[in-house]
Amino acid sequence: MNSQKDKIINVTKTFLPSLSEYQSTIKTAWNNEWLTNRGELVLELEEKLKSYLDISNIIITNNGTIPLQIALKLFGGNGEIITTPFSYVASSATIVWENCTPIFVDIDPQYLTIDESKIEKAITSKTTAILATHVFGNPCNIVAIEAIAKKHSLKVIYDAAHCFGVKFNNKSIFEYGDVSTCSFHATKIFHTAEGGAMFTNDLEIQHKLFYSHNFGHNGPLEFHGLGINGKISELQAAMGLTILPHMDKIITERKKVVEFYNNKLDFSKVKDLKIRENTLWNFSYYPLIFDSEKQLLQVQKELNDHNIFPRRYFYPSLNTIEYMKGSKMPISESVASRIMCLPLYVGLKLEELEKIVLLINSNL
Amino acid sequence: MNSQKDKIINVTKTFLPSLSEYQSTIKTAWNNEWLTNRGELVLELEEKLKSYLDISNIIITNNGTIPLQIALKLFGGNGEIITTPFSYVASSATIVWENCTPIFVDIDPQYLTIDESKIEKAITSKTTAILATHVFGNPCNIVAIEAIAKKHSLKVIYDAAHCFGVKFNNKSIFEYGDVSTCSFHATKIFHTAEGGAMFTNDLEIQHKLFYSHNFGHNGPLEFHGLGINGKISELQAAMGLTILPHMDKIITERKKVVEFYNNKLDFSKVKDLKIRENTLWNFSYYPLIFDSEKQLLQVQKELNDHNIFPRRYFYPSLNTIEYMKGSKMPISESVASRIMCLPLYVGLKLEELEKIVLLINSNL
Repeated sequence: MNSQKDKIINVTKTFLPSLSEYQSTIKTAWNNEWLTNRGELVLELEEKLKSYLDISNIIITNNGTIPLQIALKLFGGNGEIITTPFSYVASSATIVWENCTPIFVDIDPQYLTIDESKIEKAITSKTTAILATHVFGNPCNIVAIEAIAKKHSLKVIYDAAHCFGVKFNNKSIFEYGDVSTCSFHATKIFHTAEGGAMFTNDLEIQHKLFYSHNFGHNGPLEFHGLGINGKISELQAAMGLTILPHMDKIITERKKVVEFYNNKLDFSKVKDLKIRENTLWNFSYYPLIFDSEKQLLQVQKELNDHNIFPRRYFYPSLNTIEYMKGSKMPISESVASRIMCLPLYVGLKLEELEKIVLLINSNL
Repeated sequence: MNSQKDKIINVTKTFLPSLSEYQSTIKTAWNNEWLTNRGELVLELEEKLKSYLDISNIIITNNGTIPLQIALKLFGGNGEIITTPFSYVASSATIVWENCTPIFVDIDPQYLTIDESKIEKAITSKTTAILATHVFGNPCNIVAIEAIAKKHSLKVIYDAAHCFGVKFNNKSIFEYGDVSTCSFHATKIFHTAEGGAMFTNDLEIQHKLFYSHNFGHNGPLEFHGLGINGKISELQAAMGLTILPHMDKIITERKKVVEFYNNKLDFSKVKDLKIRENTLWNFSYYPLIFDSEKQLLQVQKELNDHNIFPRRYFYPSLNTIEYMKGSKMPISESVASRIMCLPLYVGLKLEELEKIVLLINSNL
């Protein structure tokens, strides 16, 4: 989208299969004369994702936000939702949008996920659910959260937007929680341009998620209950089907970039993300935590001056957004002011990586 | 989606441009390496639609439901929304979804739009807005509704899902109301597989609609306010751009079908839709109103037996859906039980139309 795109390095770059591969995949939609409402390509993608991810259930949706909205509609009951301030805005905005109240709980300074030891203190009689984010594909303390939820009869929604391909304790991360959600946005490892998915292992919840994403329909003339439009088109499903065969290459190339950063960055002066134990991670983001915001801004300026654009992600800490009306979250606010995601995508060249690392290390 | 598709006549059939036209349009996305977040194709489609529809503003969205949700979030204030029971379920489901209460007002038996003479009696201190549907592209009594809204300081949202290309008093129907919405679903005259749009002439509302459909963003690090994800992908925008040059043909061919039905059906025994005065209609649907549900079911059975599948649309009257908790709406319930939309799409053959009319007329 700019005239110097070959010279600019952004934090991410959409993975594109070859145009001809995509053009070939969409022929099915023309053959069927069928473009949406769960056509052959959506159904095929669901089956292939179940197999690839080794999961039992999936409902593909038009983006990664609708699944959060639907889960909150089912579980939120206009109550208080315990959540993390360190996430993309969607995870808290959907809580407010769905007429619930976000109750922020600060994060663990190393894993960057919600601090499970602080959750119970935040529970009140109005609490209905916990909405926690597996930040940068790094799992929350699932075991502890599950125990707390069980003890207090709360539902657990995991915003697993970043988690395509992540496993925890040898199981897909999407198998955890009452509902897990994922994003298939163009910036994600696997994508459908815009898209997402919701997952559950509970058949009754699955039924409700399903009808909720299709206007509540029970056939053309009857309704199971309330619903909206969470349907994804065949045009988007075709993108997913075209990308899926490239996943091994995508993961391998991203892993190389991550390992380069791991080996070359000067970790005496900055910190990286601590991945939780028993996790098979997906190399989705490379966040770097600086000593101070001043240091971050200096490095950012230096990189920008060389046409390199990392992203301050996540910033700001969500509790500080005015309409969220959140309490102070010292750790999240501190981390948010000092964290930046480095360029990480398929096709980054060795000399580009060397330049990035040199510019960072020499400005610490 | 079936093995006998050449023999089956459904109520509608998605208009498909040639595969090669679409394959050519999407090259832009590959050239830009850009698949969503308002890329070149979305912006181009918005400009072309402004010109085609002769309107000043448009925001294209991922479907036709999100604009209703956003408008209700801006205007609803968890209050009572006066609405029509004769519409697709989305128009009332979004009211409930957005934590407002639908207050149904019965319809005019000829125009099938909300009966403006009954609106004022339904207004209470909790009323915040009127959400009215231009049913089958047939305008509501816009002049009367505007006067009522002004008198009572209510906002007006028009569900104009069916109204692509409709003009009222020589102006695009989308120019009326505080917000109008449209659907670009695959079954619509103009479509983007899944898609929609929202329209307003008020710059402040335009600003709010815009940020609401993109997570409230004011740049990457700040927020204007609350928002969700209403973004449409380049893959969908490309479909719209590919179809737009065919609009004259689409309208012309649909008009021929409508005129055939108008000339051949036995209107001594059934009624058609009365189009409002000063309306340039778009030939979007061909609803037929029978004397009784029994008669409708008999005709439907006869048509089905010949592989012809009209659609009971709209059925049921929305006030009768359990979760809507609606009062009795005698006219809407009566019409809903007796109305059926006939096959209407580009490519219907003369012999198919003759067969449909013969089967209907001979079963009245």
